Amino acid sequence: MSKTVLLATEKPFSASARNEVVAIIEQAGYKPVVLESYKGKAPLIEALASADAAIIRSDIFDAEVLGAAPNLKLVVRAGAGYDNIDVATAKAKNIAVMNTPGQNANAVAELVFGMMIYQARGKFNGKTGSEIRGKTIGLHAFGAVGRAVAAIAKGFAMPVVAFDPFVKPEAFQQAGVEAVSSVEELYRRSNFVSLHVPATAETKNSIGKKLLSLLPQGGTLINTARKEVINEAELLEQFEARKDFRYLSDIAPTDATAATIKEKYADKVYFTPVKMGAQTEEANVNAGLAAARQIVGFFERGEKQFVVNK
Amino acid sequence: MSKTVLLATEKPFSASARNEVVAIIEQAGYKPVVLESYKGKAPLIEALASADAAIIRSDIFDAEVLGAAPNLKLVVRAGAGYDNIDVATAKAKNIAVMNTPGQNANAVAELVFGMMIYQARGKFNGKTGSEIRGKTIGLHAFGAVGRAVAAIAKGFAMPVVAFDPFVKPEAFQQAGVEAVSSVEELYRRSNFVSLHVPATAETKNSIGKKLLSLLPQGGTLINTARKEVINEAELLEQFEARKDFRYLSDIAPTDATAATIKEKYADKVYFTPVKMGAQTEEANVNAGLAAARQIVGFFERGEKQFVVNK
Repeated sequence: MSKTVLLATEKPFSASARNEVVAIIEQAGYKPVVLESYKGKAPLIEALASADAAIIRSDIFDAEVLGAAPNLKLVVRAGAGYDNIDVATAKAKNIAVMNTPGQNANAVAELVFGMMIYQARGKFNGKTGSEIRGKTIGLHAFGAVGRAVAAIAKGFAMPVVAFDPFVKPEAFQQAGVEAVSSVEELYRRSNFVSLHVPATAETKNSIGKKLLSLLPQGGTLINTARKEVINEAELLEQFEARKDFRYLSDIAPTDATAATIKEKYADKVYFTPVKMGAQTEEANVNAGLAAARQIVGFFERGEKQFVVNK
Repeated sequence: MSKTVLLATEKPFSASARNEVVAIIEQAGYKPVVLESYKGKAPLIEALASADAAIIRSDIFDAEVLGAAPNLKLVVRAGAGYDNIDVATAKAKNIAVMNTPGQNANAVAELVFGMMIYQARGKFNGKTGSEIRGKTIGLHAFGAVGRAVAAIAKGFAMPVVAFDPFVKPEAFQQAGVEAVSSVEELYRRSNFVSLHVPATAETKNSIGKKLLSLLPQGGTLINTARKEVINEAELLEQFEARKDFRYLSDIAPTDATAATIKEKYADKVYFTPVKMGAQTEEANVNAGLAAARQIVGFFERGEKQFVVNK
């Protein structure tokens, strides 16, 4: 019997991206089911009753949702971060979880530089700003996004340093990036630190005063990763202690912290209204197509390269 | 008798930049006179009574001002464009005019990319935007700013084409830029055209419908050069004829044109509140120091490399 592939997107793809995803599913001989802009878990649970695989975005797949999916073998997060999926429960139920790493990388990287220049030029207020050329950028984690940031940084003649204990030395060398041996050294040497760590038990609340206080004069933290990795109480302490500190993010802190920051340090921060690093037509198309292709590869050829809960 | 060097800046340098300029003048044994944030011509004319050389920014040096400068031998525009100086009158009065080409180039180039990403990402509105990676950028003139734009574009993996009949083929090759043989080809092939032509009798009103209509779908014009090079009536025709056209500039059109554009095409344009391409600490320091050094070189060693009215 033909497989049913659910495309469940509370925040939908563009029509053109969705159509391309559906086309890949149909070309494989599978039945596509599209559930877009739904509210609450009920429509999702209903649609999962007959799904063999699902493509999702930031949609919540918790134990309750996964428990309502009797045929589900694979859920693919069209994107990099998959903390919206209860991977342990999925594993217990023999449901493979994948992400599509790298497809959003350039979109995020371009936003990093967009925010850097926007802030360096006084949010385009017409007053005298500063340049990013020649300043050192430090990459806290060197996955797909970090590598995309490094490539762009070269054009700005910015020295690039990176810290990532999970990456082999050759990978840094190939990218022309200097690997530093400690996270402290990364913060000490970088005029800009761009965060690209996932939100895990180890990384949550891990970026605080101890690291931020090491930043050189005028040091700027750019967070396009996850807000949970920031220790918000210590972030406020850093703002208080270091008038030269700057913070740019497409994921504002929790409301109370953000309100304090905007009230007291408005000219030192920039937050986009919502998380938008990965939000480009190109990234959406790339991630959606990759997710659809990964589903076909999984069922037809047993490909498990991007399974994150092996 | 010691030379007197006037630093006349209606829009002043930063204090640190001004102090470094003054230090170079003093080190040469000259007398610095600083006139900042002045209003109207009277204080300028008074200060010029005893000046042998002047460093200026966008300050107006017309025939009246030049006529009031009996000892003036040299006026240096700390910056690239010198259309604020009546060079013909200066020449007739044997006053050399110089600019400091290239010192502002990176500041302008970074703003070009800042505005490109800002617009491509919906002015950071959080909605789905687009990426600049892989899109073709066309440089209309390939001087110092064009070259700085080209270098940054490489980091974004953007193919770079350029048109500049005054530049030798080797210069394009060295920069890894494809020279196109006609200005029409430049506009036809470029997703983004970045304008870097000076305002001259030939270039004024030269960017109009004939060129803009050649832009590919979604084509964007970026003007960090001069507003006078745009044919504003035809710019409005282009907006009307091409809903996909975008225009980014740090020099808004004349008030009436800007008002029409903002009323009818607000989401398709971005204008900074004032001209700010060259406005960085780094560029100001670089241009001011270059101007001071060029004055010393002129008087002490007869250096005339940057004289524009030979």
